[in-house]
Amino acid sequence: MKIVVIGGVAAGASTAARARRLCEDAEIVVLEKDAFISFANCGLPYHIGGDIKDRNALLLQTPESLRATLNIDVRTGHEVIHINRELKQLTILDRNLDKNYVESYDKLVLSQGADALRPPIPGIDHQKIFVLRNIPDMDAIIQQIDEGARKAIVIGGGFIGIEVAEAFRQRDMEVELVELQNQLMPPLDCEMACDLRYHMESKGVQLHLGSAAKEFIDAVGKVNVVLDNSLTLVADFVVLAIGVRPASKLAIDAELKMGGRGGIKVDSHLQTSDPDIYAAGDMVEVTDTVTGEPTQLPLAGPANRQGRIVADNLFGRASQYRSTQGTAVVKIFDMTAGSTGASEKTLRRVNRAYHKVYLHPSGHAGYYPGTAPMHIKLLFEPEVGTVLGVQIVGYDGVDKRIDVFATAIRAGMTVFDLEHLELAYAPPYGSAKDPVNMAGFISSNFLRGDLDFWYAEDFPDKVSNGMLLDVRGVKEFEKWNIPGSVNIPLRELRSRLHEVQKDQPIYLYCRVGFRSYLAYRILKQKGFEQVSILAGGSKTFNCFCRTALATGKPGVPFVSHAEEKLAETPDALKNA
Amino acid sequence: MKIVVIGGVAAGASTAARARRLCEDAEIVVLEKDAFISFANCGLPYHIGGDIKDRNALLLQTPESLRATLNIDVRTGHEVIHINRELKQLTILDRNLDKNYVESYDKLVLSQGADALRPPIPGIDHQKIFVLRNIPDMDAIIQQIDEGARKAIVIGGGFIGIEVAEAFRQRDMEVELVELQNQLMPPLDCEMACDLRYHMESKGVQLHLGSAAKEFIDAVGKVNVVLDNSLTLVADFVVLAIGVRPASKLAIDAELKMGGRGGIKVDSHLQTSDPDIYAAGDMVEVTDTVTGEPTQLPLAGPANRQGRIVADNLFGRASQYRSTQGTAVVKIFDMTAGSTGASEKTLRRVNRAYHKVYLHPSGHAGYYPGTAPMHIKLLFEPEVGTVLGVQIVGYDGVDKRIDVFATAIRAGMTVFDLEHLELAYAPPYGSAKDPVNMAGFISSNFLRGDLDFWYAEDFPDKVSNGMLLDVRGVKEFEKWNIPGSVNIPLRELRSRLHEVQKDQPIYLYCRVGFRSYLAYRILKQKGFEQVSILAGGSKTFNCFCRTALATGKPGVPFVSHAEEKLAETPDALKNA
Repeated sequence: MKIVVIGGVAAGASTAARARRLCEDAEIVVLEKDAFISFANCGLPYHIGGDIKDRNALLLQTPESLRATLNIDVRTGHEVIHINRELKQLTILDRNLDKNYVESYDKLVLSQGADALRPPIPGIDHQKIFVLRNIPDMDAIIQQIDEGARKAIVIGGGFIGIEVAEAFRQRDMEVELVELQNQLMPPLDCEMACDLRYHMESKGVQLHLGSAAKEFIDAVGKVNVVLDNSLTLVADFVVLAIGVRPASKLAIDAELKMGGRGGIKVDSHLQTSDPDIYAAGDMVEVTDTVTGEPTQLPLAGPANRQGRIVADNLFGRASQYRSTQGTAVVKIFDMTAGSTGASEKTLRRVNRAYHKVYLHPSGHAGYYPGTAPMHIKLLFEPEVGTVLGVQIVGYDGVDKRIDVFATAIRAGMTVFDLEHLELAYAPPYGSAKDPVNMAGFISSNFLRGDLDFWYAEDFPDKVSNGMLLDVRGVKEFEKWNIPGSVNIPLRELRSRLHEVQKDQPIYLYCRVGFRSYLAYRILKQKGFEQVSILAGGSKTFNCFCRTALATGKPGVPFVSHAEEKLAETPDALKNA
Repeated sequence: MKIVVIGGVAAGASTAARARRLCEDAEIVVLEKDAFISFANCGLPYHIGGDIKDRNALLLQTPESLRATLNIDVRTGHEVIHINRELKQLTILDRNLDKNYVESYDKLVLSQGADALRPPIPGIDHQKIFVLRNIPDMDAIIQQIDEGARKAIVIGGGFIGIEVAEAFRQRDMEVELVELQNQLMPPLDCEMACDLRYHMESKGVQLHLGSAAKEFIDAVGKVNVVLDNSLTLVADFVVLAIGVRPASKLAIDAELKMGGRGGIKVDSHLQTSDPDIYAAGDMVEVTDTVTGEPTQLPLAGPANRQGRIVADNLFGRASQYRSTQGTAVVKIFDMTAGSTGASEKTLRRVNRAYHKVYLHPSGHAGYYPGTAPMHIKLLFEPEVGTVLGVQIVGYDGVDKRIDVFATAIRAGMTVFDLEHLELAYAPPYGSAKDPVNMAGFISSNFLRGDLDFWYAEDFPDKVSNGMLLDVRGVKEFEKWNIPGSVNIPLRELRSRLHEVQKDQPIYLYCRVGFRSYLAYRILKQKGFEQVSILAGGSKTFNCFCRTALATGKPGVPFVSHAEEKLAETPDALKNA
């Protein structure tokens, strides 16, 4: 059996390595058009920024190491330019010799990944416009900095754009970031990205949200970026990080069946429409775990696991790839943002019913130093409560909770199951009632009818028919409140019930939702029929970017316990 | 309805708070014999050590705050001395007034927690022998230090003993720790506790493992601790941290049905044998999630969740407590150790069939700074592969993986499911193939017959019938090897197969198991029938405390990538 793998990075290298482990006698050829195989593409921004000092650390394998240990024939600089499916032959350009040759295969694996998008904007071919997909891209950017570049413009506010902007700030450069959408991290729902914006700005990145580059103009060694709001930015160089597109030209030319989003159509065995051709990684269309829809998600984890599954199937093992839920995480200076499963945007788009809760628990016990509240948004199925998606933005412990929720989604758990999760608790790591438990408690309370919500986006129109009741303390109310609201501190509510009219909806709010919950329980049991609490409290409210109301500051990390306590008292949920 | 809760810390405070939320009109009384309610008992060692500066941060609630916000009648210094179940009355000693009085109840909740064990060792009542269960205990210990104590002896090497020893080192004290078992952290299997020992010693804690205190003798203001190995230690004071016992005297006197391990017998609704009495927290016997056996596990998370469930049942909601899986984590200076589900000891004790794997993945991508290999032990069911238990010891990312495994155990996931988990990956947080995925890959490979293991404990007897084959590099072999082993580096194996005799078992090993796995695949496919690899490699081997072989050093954190790479090359599993 002769297996040819096109593309030698994540999915391709995994396929080839496992193929060898499964079959010592197969001939395994890996063709990589670029100079490097199996490099750490997720590490590229961190070498630019200096966190990863040693460039060699990014080169996980070399052709020599794969030959020596796995007996794999790795050919770098070999670009496949045509697939002849009938003859099962490839036409290959050996870039080193600049010569074409033909190679046969029994089974072919496509794993060329994705290419950075370069939209046809005037001036896009300017030599100071870079992308960051591979080692040469990285080297070119570092060369700019080493040669004295002091200012960069990053186009795109997703994972790579944010990581690159941070890297440039670590190199003491000026950075402006341009993002088409009115938020950073477009996979997140807008309100969840709010704190990231303030945090980036506090770290000296100048943001242009809701803006697009419409032209690049040369300016004597520099480059001018003309935005669609007619602002012109100038920098020593530009990094384009607006996304990637499956490198599917070969597959299209070979008339393999393609998916609607530009990826290759594969079955659960990762077999393409040609039974002798498999595909894995950023190139393939996958099924979304939550929506069941076909989707295209370039993620390293799925790519690596798909490589293993392809290898299994090459040798008659019927392993199946299940689905992709889009679990992702990004470091933004001191903050962390992550998500798994569907966002609210996605659920709306596919017209799927959902409920949502917001909460702001600490990464670990508030009385132990080094923690800060995180902002969690949990989306779940009405009635049965199946977890549909989670987004978290915060400082410590964000990635941990994303992984727990990701596991819960895979297991088909409901919010009722989250109540029962027994997670590791010691003060440096968590709370006796972990943020995941808390999310379960709040959601389950809602599904059981023990509380009802109103949402920040209901303000002002949908809440104008009732009483906006702030149950925080007087000092908190004086510092900031929602226009039109009345203040009765929770502690006084029982004795001041006569101030609340029964014949109108009561819209409660506090800082994070807990005091309103207590107030809700009192009011409902005292005969008030239409009561609801602001989901996520004023903290979530202020993430909806109403500039007149917002504090303009991100959730500050590492606040003193005393300060948190002042604002939060009482919180019987926080018992150790 | 009049609800009386005895004990106002974790379970009791949770019960009372949720009871009020569920019913505004109930009369709720909390009786606490000590001076403090709802304090952060897990935080006590960290205030001693100075990480938590503000003592008030440990006081989560006061009687006043619970009255003001939840209308709960909290009485501190009120000790219940008798329960009259027939009359549904309590006899209470008001310690403040030193007077008895009688209080009736409709429903009674027992949540007095557990008391520190004080075994009847001669001299145990010495005034310089302390325990650490509550605020006054903590205050007394801090007073010792403030008054000039420079040396402490800690008896007990479990959670509290370790945390207290660390706290004393942070206060620049000399510390000796005495533990009856021949390991720290008795809930862990012995080999998993090995690195903790070296780490504690490297931090200046002198350990006496496998030793018991047999007498305490006064020595002019100091205390002598006589060990059963006839060593006598001397210190300014002693902390006893050898475990706790349910505070069940009241329940026994009231002739409630008790469990075999000293806790109160409750049904899944946490109802005792008296339908008007519920119990929660450290006092109740629970069902072990994995073994299904009754057990006694004093943990803050379950206590808090049980409080909620009791409250539900008080008001006719049939919430059920599922089970306790013993998820726990502890900080040991720079290290973290955690476990969830059953240990190997437990599975042996209950005679449950299992398989085990060991692995040493990094907390996050090895090329990104600030990570170190962790040591994972995964126990799973034969054939179906259900996850039974996990133990992890390491530096970064330990608590996260414990929580993912804990969730997987709750969901009844198998090792095959772990292969498919889609966890959050970016270089600062994880790897494209997360440690949890890796544990799934290795275990699944084993169950599918793609590899076979031998274990450190098989050495030397069970491996004496074959060839011990070290497939690491020559330099690694020269530095350390298992006596009697032969070295053929993996890279040379294909060309030196003639040096391996077919008619004998081949016992492969390398540093962590990956190179042996590749060698296994080659040998099996080349006709060698009896091949197995050392589970966890030499790193796990050296944790079995064979002093002649062990390095005597813990897994060193934050090694340079280059060093790891030298030892580990090749590792195609590490593709980004």
